[in-house]
Amino acid sequence: MGALTNGIPEKTIERLSEYRRTLLASHRQGITHIFSHVLAGIHGITAVQVRRDLMLIGFSSDTKKGYDVQVLIEYISKILDSPQPMNIAVLGMGHLGQAITKYFNSKGLNLKITAAFDIDPEKVGKTIFGIPCYHMDSFETMVEDNDISIVIVSLPTKVASELVVPIINAGIKGVLNFTSTPLNFPQGIIVENYDITTLLEKVAYFVKENEIENANSQI
Amino acid sequence: MGALTNGIPEKTIERLSEYRRTLLASHRQGITHIFSHVLAGIHGITAVQVRRDLMLIGFSSDTKKGYDVQVLIEYISKILDSPQPMNIAVLGMGHLGQAITKYFNSKGLNLKITAAFDIDPEKVGKTIFGIPCYHMDSFETMVEDNDISIVIVSLPTKVASELVVPIINAGIKGVLNFTSTPLNFPQGIIVENYDITTLLEKVAYFVKENEIENANSQI
Repeated sequence: MGALTNGIPEKTIERLSEYRRTLLASHRQGITHIFSHVLAGIHGITAVQVRRDLMLIGFSSDTKKGYDVQVLIEYISKILDSPQPMNIAVLGMGHLGQAITKYFNSKGLNLKITAAFDIDPEKVGKTIFGIPCYHMDSFETMVEDNDISIVIVSLPTKVASELVVPIINAGIKGVLNFTSTPLNFPQGIIVENYDITTLLEKVAYFVKENEIENANSQI
Repeated sequence: MGALTNGIPEKTIERLSEYRRTLLASHRQGITHIFSHVLAGIHGITAVQVRRDLMLIGFSSDTKKGYDVQVLIEYISKILDSPQPMNIAVLGMGHLGQAITKYFNSKGLNLKITAAFDIDPEKVGKTIFGIPCYHMDSFETMVEDNDISIVIVSLPTKVASELVVPIINAGIKGVLNFTSTPLNFPQGIIVENYDITTLLEKVAYFVKENEIENANSQI
């Protein structure tokens, strides 16, 4: 992601997002308190890591009953969320774009996908999972009209780089790019390039290493 | 992901996967050599980071013309890939499962999605993007018959935890979990829990921090 971390490391921000999801699920189940080691166990990390992350954001009200779930949710939300919900647009309403739209908007997050863009006449002008799909040609106007801050890039890799200029011109502030082409933007625009192939290749690598290790230990 | 890193850090593995994609794209364009600072620029990192990653895997044949693209591709592939391609199954052929299947199998990777599982009668027994979709009931048998090592979990979050026991019983070695429920497995099974909500919340957080910083600098 780059240099802009304002004190809290990127990995801690990721974990805070993960903790909050677990805390929200616990809250829905009527759980009022949770110990750091329980939270740690769910996420496959150590309790020390959980406590360190929460100390970094100034949260330390660990009691004999553990953390107060609701208080901790509110505390993390104050760190992660902006005061007004941010509007998001999806660029490319293929399978991935549709999967993401359906998934996010069912979750009641502080982030809302409010528009989609495509060039496919089968999609433009339609409402897909509750979201209007506009033609890419109207991108810059619609971003302004709809106060969109963030775009998710889920269109074919070969056209991804054509989006850089329109994204800059439209005043977009954050980009989550799922294509195979890393996109570069001027400072001031946050970009996260994430081809999910990387996740899969990483899992495959550690599976392979595990097998080599097991084979060696059996000699 | 946990403790198993066998010397090469997880983040380096991720970047190697990213470098390889860029190198493959460069190779297709007829580029034979690439400088570390060019590779770094594409990925928004420093040339020092690129050189450090490649030194970690023992690659140092930087010449005046830069790295030989083809040689570096082969070198990274020897690190990342296992000698035989690994078979992958997708659990849950909704929008996300279909998006992933279509995306990966068009890429000619060393990893191949060879089977899908669902319980929806509309999908079971069909071939979707060239992949046979079986009923979840036949999961354990099919994993053995098809020599599947890795599963991608892309079904609804509320049923994800029901998969832990079948995955263990089937002898699966790696899990890439896209649901909101972190899954825990015994040591020896590699798991990567990745809810893409985290990526989006991270981008939103840094956008918010950026705006606060800009507002302050204008006072």
